[in-house]
Parts: sequence; C-alpha cells; structure tokens
Amino acid sequence: MVIKPGSVGIVAPQPIHFAEPLRLASGASIGDYTLMVETYGELNADRSNAVLVCHALNASHHVAGVYADQSRNVGWWDNMIGPGKPVDTSRFFVVGVNNLGSCFGSTGPMSINPATGKPYGASFPVVTVEDWVNAQARVADALGIGRWAAVMGGSLGGMQALSWTIQYPERIAHCVAIATTPKLTAQNIAFNEVARTAIRSDPDFHGGDYYAHGVVPKRGLRVARMIGHITYLSGDDMAEKFGRSMRADDYQFHYDIEFEVESYLRYQGDKFSEYFDANTYLLITRALDYFDPARATGGDLKRALSPARAKFFLASFTTDWRFSPARSREIVEALVANDRDVVYAEIDAPHGHDAFLLDDVRYHNVVRAYFDRVYGELTSGPSSLASPRAEQKRGTDVAERVA
Amino acid sequence: MVIKPGSVGIVAPQPIHFAEPLRLASGASIGDYTLMVETYGELNADRSNAVLVCHALNASHHVAGVYADQSRNVGWWDNMIGPGKPVDTSRFFVVGVNNLGSCFGSTGPMSINPATGKPYGASFPVVTVEDWVNAQARVADALGIGRWAAVMGGSLGGMQALSWTIQYPERIAHCVAIATTPKLTAQNIAFNEVARTAIRSDPDFHGGDYYAHGVVPKRGLRVARMIGHITYLSGDDMAEKFGRSMRADDYQFHYDIEFEVESYLRYQGDKFSEYFDANTYLLITRALDYFDPARATGGDLKRALSPARAKFFLASFTTDWRFSPARSREIVEALVANDRDVVYAEIDAPHGHDAFLLDDVRYHNVVRAYFDRVYGELTSGPSSLASPRAEQKRGTDVAERVA
Repeated sequence: MVIKPGSVGIVAPQPIHFAEPLRLASGASIGDYTLMVETYGELNADRSNAVLVCHALNASHHVAGVYADQSRNVGWWDNMIGPGKPVDTSRFFVVGVNNLGSCFGSTGPMSINPATGKPYGASFPVVTVEDWVNAQARVADALGIGRWAAVMGGSLGGMQALSWTIQYPERIAHCVAIATTPKLTAQNIAFNEVARTAIRSDPDFHGGDYYAHGVVPKRGLRVARMIGHITYLSGDDMAEKFGRSMRADDYQFHYDIEFEVESYLRYQGDKFSEYFDANTYLLITRALDYFDPARATGGDLKRALSPARAKFFLASFTTDWRFSPARSREIVEALVANDRDVVYAEIDAPHGHDAFLLDDVRYHNVVRAYFDRVYGELTSGPSSLASPRAEQKRGTDVAERVA
Repeated sequence: MVIKPGSVGIVAPQPIHFAEPLRLASGASIGDYTLMVETYGELNADRSNAVLVCHALNASHHVAGVYADQSRNVGWWDNMIGPGKPVDTSRFFVVGVNNLGSCFGSTGPMSINPATGKPYGASFPVVTVEDWVNAQARVADALGIGRWAAVMGGSLGGMQALSWTIQYPERIAHCVAIATTPKLTAQNIAFNEVARTAIRSDPDFHGGDYYAHGVVPKRGLRVARMIGHITYLSGDDMAEKFGRSMRADDYQFHYDIEFEVESYLRYQGDKFSEYFDANTYLLITRALDYFDPARATGGDLKRALSPARAKFFLASFTTDWRFSPARSREIVEALVANDRDVVYAEIDAPHGHDAFLLDDVRYHNVVRAYFDRVYGELTSGPSSLASPRAEQKRGTDVAERVA
C-alpha cells in the first residue's frame, strides 16, 4: 500500500466502553455503551496538545488516514489533518469519535439493547448535541485529556464545538466551528422533515424496527440522501458540474435518466443507502433540529455563550445556502458582544455547504494559521498569530520533512 | 351561496373533445382526447378580447370563480381574474384549460385508453410545453379565437405563454409570463428528480400502473409535494411564518411533530396526495425539465425568440429562489436584443416563488396597468400605458360598479 505524503498513514479504530449510564437531555439514560475512536499523532507529556474532531451527519471517527485492509477508505477530513497539514499531527494529538447513536461501531439503534437482547431500533433514545458533548467529555476522561487544545468541526460538528464552550468552558482552549449555525431555520428543519418522512413512509421501515424483519428502508434512505445532497451543493456549483448535460444527444421522452444531474443524485442516493442506518438518519437530523443553545436564555445568543472561555475560530462559505455566512456572523457577533477572542473568515468558495470538506487553499491557509496560533500558545503561552513570513517558513520546513 | 364582489361568480367547466390525433414532440400521438375548459366574461364581436391562462404544476382549468356545489373551491388565480380585477372579465374573455396529461378531467394517465379499454398509466406519452401549446391552439380553434389578446401564466404557465410567441407568433398579441425561466437549472431538475424518485420508489406505484391494483402511491406523492413546497416558499417567508415555533412548550424528544413547519408540510403533503395523480406529477415535472426553447438554436435564446411578434410583460419576485429574477432577466435581455416591446417588473416580495399566486398590491397594480394597455389596443389600436391618474380613476369606477 502506498501512503500519500501528508497522510497519517494506516490507522485503526478502537472501541471505548462505558459502563456507567449516560443521562440524556430527554431524561432517558443509555447504559453500557461503546464509542469508536481513532487517534492520530502523539499526546505530549503535559497532555495539552489534544484536538477533538466532531463529525457531521454521515461521517464518523474515521477522520484521517486509511485502514490496512481498505486502502481506499480515506478519512473524511484527511485533507485537513495529517503531518504538515493545517491540523498538523506532528504537533497535535487528534481524536475522532463516532457519536452515540451513529452507525459506525458506536452504540446506536442497530446495537443490541442488553436489556432485551434485540436491536434498539425505534427504542433508541433521541440524543442531542449536548448529549454528544457529554459523551465526548467521557472520552476525554478515558484518554486522560483534561482540556482540549481545540475542539473542531464543520456543520453539525461545529455545533458540537460550540456546545463544548458552553458545557465545559474550562476544558476547551480553542473552538474551531466551520460552516455552522446557532440553530436551524424553518427551511433547514423542513428539509430534514421531508427526509425523515421519506424514511418513515418506506414500508421497509417498520416503525424503526426493520432489523427484526431482515430489511432496510433503502428507498427512503435514498430519497433522504438525494434531498440532503441538493442542499450541500450550491446552485452555481451544480450548474458548473452538471448544467443540463444529458446522457443521450437528444431527449428520450421517458422518466429514466436523461440528465447527468439525475444520474449523479441517484448514484449518491444508492451508495448512501448501502451503508447508512435509517434510524441514525432520523436521530442525527433530529439532533440538528434541536440544537439551539439560546433556547435556554430566551433566544439571547450572547447570554447563551456567556459561559464560554475559549478562543474562537469561525469560518463560513459564501455560496453555502444551508448554513449561510449570516448564520456564522450571528455567532461572531454574540461572541464579540461577550468580549471573546474571535477570528472569523468568510471564504469566497463556489462549493456550497460541502466546501468545508474540500481542499481549498485559502480556507486551509486560514485554518493552518489559526492552528499555528493554537500550537504557539502550547509551546510558549498565549501569543498573537505567527507572522506571514514565519508561516511561510514553517510550511516549507514541513514540506521538506514530509517529502 | 354568497359570491364575493369581484368574483366571476358560479362557473362550470366544459369538456372539449378532439377526435383528430395530436402529434407530440416525442413522435408519439394521442388520439381522441378531451380537454377541460372554463371561460369567464364575454367574447366580443370581433373575437379579439380573449385571454388564455396557462396553469403550472398542480393547477387546472379552474382559474376563477366557484362551483355551484363547491362554494369553497375557488379558482387558483381568482385574486387576479374577475370583474374589476387586474385581468378584468368585464373587458376580457378569459379561458382556462387543463393541460393534456393533467388529472382534472382532461385526458391523462388516469384516463381510459380507447385502444386497450384500460387506464393509460405508464403508457401515457411524455408531453412537452410545446405539445401543450399545440393542444391549446386547437382549443382556440374550437372557441373561434384566431388570435389571443394575451396568453398569460406563472412558472410553468409562463413557459407556455413564452412558447406561444415562438410557435404561433401571429396568434398572440401579448405574452404575460410571470416568475418563469427560459430553462431549468441543474438544481431545479435535481429537485424534480428527487420528487419523482419518491413517487417511483413507493411500492404502490407499480411502475405507473397502480390504477389496476386499486392503490395510489400516496406516500411518494406526499414526499414529492413536501419537497416542492419548500422550493415554492422563500427561506425568509418560512422563517416569518413558522420560525422554530413548536407544538408543545418543550422538546418531546420524538420523531413526531415538534415544529409547526413539520405540521404544515405534512398537512400540505397529505392534502395533495388525496387529489393529485402520481403519473401526472411525473409527466409535468418532466415537461418542466425539458423546456428549453434555446436548445433548438444552440443555446442562443435571442435566436430562439426571434420568431416572436408579441409584446411582452414579464415579472419576477426578489425572494423567488426557484426561478429567480435573474432567469426572467435572461428572457428580457433576449427580447430586447430582438427589439421586442418588453415591460419587466421585478417585485420586492417576501413570498418566494408562490408570490405569483398571491394578492400583492404592487404586483397586481403592474399587471392591471399592463392589461389596461392590452385593452386600450383592442379598443383604439396600439397605445402607450394609461397614466397613473387614469388608472386610479378606472379602478374607482370598477369598484363602484362591482359594489
């Protein structure tokens, strides 16, 4: 297997088992659960260089690198994390964790409920972003990490990073929240609800207990994913990628694939329905709907964020119509009103919401510069951002080292 | 029954039967078909005051007024059309027609195929906007209308009005095309394809031949309508109408209705799935996908519109993200390049694509002024727009007459 320069290389997930029940926001508890974790880089002697990476809807603990037996299964944020990359694993100890209720090895609806000996299915409790953060805090405890150098994430992952600053203000030095929002809009919730309706109304869903029937509501999952996918891309990006390109030279006058964009969406939907769990889709979209830290403060986001002690990096993308730059600016304004230390980058990128996952040099450069600052504070106490010249120098050094 | 002032009153649809087969763009023909029609007002002696109103996805020939036995079944553009309304039925003879392939009495997939004695179902031919216009031309022939004073429509209806100017340049004096586009974008097609996938993957669809099974793919139709509905409203409008308003005071931690926007979408989806035909949904969304008059001229919209001899009124709405003002401007620019007479109004309205159906005073005033001009040309030959003062005077007169 050829490992690309800049990759963390071959990685292996590890399960962490938790025997003590976790009390959830709903009032329910989940006992005896497992979270899948991956780590990259080395935890330093004073355990101060740990970075937690939180995932969004369909991702997992597999953030970077590849598996020994699956060389094409590259981590979902591999372009961001690795030796010499913006989040430099020669400096940081990076932790990816698959959230409770997801379907990549952590305890979720597909798991066997020890109380019944059957899959949880519909009985798996609804969880929230805050619940995930509580579960992640236990992961930190298990790894001996008292305080994260940074917690970072995009989209729903950014919500978790934000929540860390409210729930555990002393345990997070830097919050890196990208392409996120302080709460979903009615339109965001509407798209989630259509996706859930597609899943729920698939006859193979069986009220969420499809495991017992040996079926999977693939048709519903496919539609859900297709809807989601439209909202991840910008209209311009779709126009650029597909436009009205057709399969044939002329109209065929049928309902099968005519346009390339139809083919693309069907492919994305089919692929997704092969590996993702439908109950997890419901659960994670519901966690998105529920996220609204200012709900506890009568809608006052400034007050909701007042416990935060972290420093903040936020970024948004101009063509993101799912969580637009205006939503990030709401957070920035609330933080500034609290006299918090905030760096905000609004990146002119054509790729819509998906831009946070893509390799864009301007985007990666600002994240890199911010993590230089995070690292600088680790090694010499709080300092200002490295000068562009120093930055350039370091980049060159790293390139040489990796080569 | 109380008829509201300004209503055309009680109306009755009438079927028009066509024995001669209609050759379609696909090469197929449809023989022995019926179109449902409604008319309001009186055709004048020289048959010059007829206005054709073309419908969009889910509407019909029932444009204005009410039915004697269904007092709440008000025509879909009743706020626009009636005595004293922007399209004044005391001046114009207005014709609504249910398009071929629709499901409100005109021949479509639900109809019995005389060749087989069974419903057409999946065998109903794919039709295009151009096919509809050809069918509407036969309606004009049947009604003795040589030339429309105006053909008007919003969204897909606007596409038909545009197509009239290309297909029958001598038979249309004014084209009134609102909230429309010269062709769908990749994102527009993508939303249609997700809706179609939801319908197709409903087990009750049976490949389009569900009539024989005594079932209706309601689950798929419901999801299709929910998706569509999100695209008809602006994000701001949804925020204004629903925001994050909830059913209960606090989160219930379930997947049933939590937010009012979920309730609204489910209601819209349920209602739609009770009356709309799934095959018609496929057929009409495909007609939308296919519409692209500039396809015949290598993408040159100016050249595509060069046969047009009509005068044009176009309007768009600032918050319409389905067919944005930029799309209307493409048409305006192509018409101006052809030295055509164009009035274009870009209306600052919060209601997204649906704005074309709503009662907005600025919008209705510009349509009213334009139809004053259309009427002026009927009575005294081509003239410029009535002055605002004359306009105001006329409005008052009409109000008095109606009261």
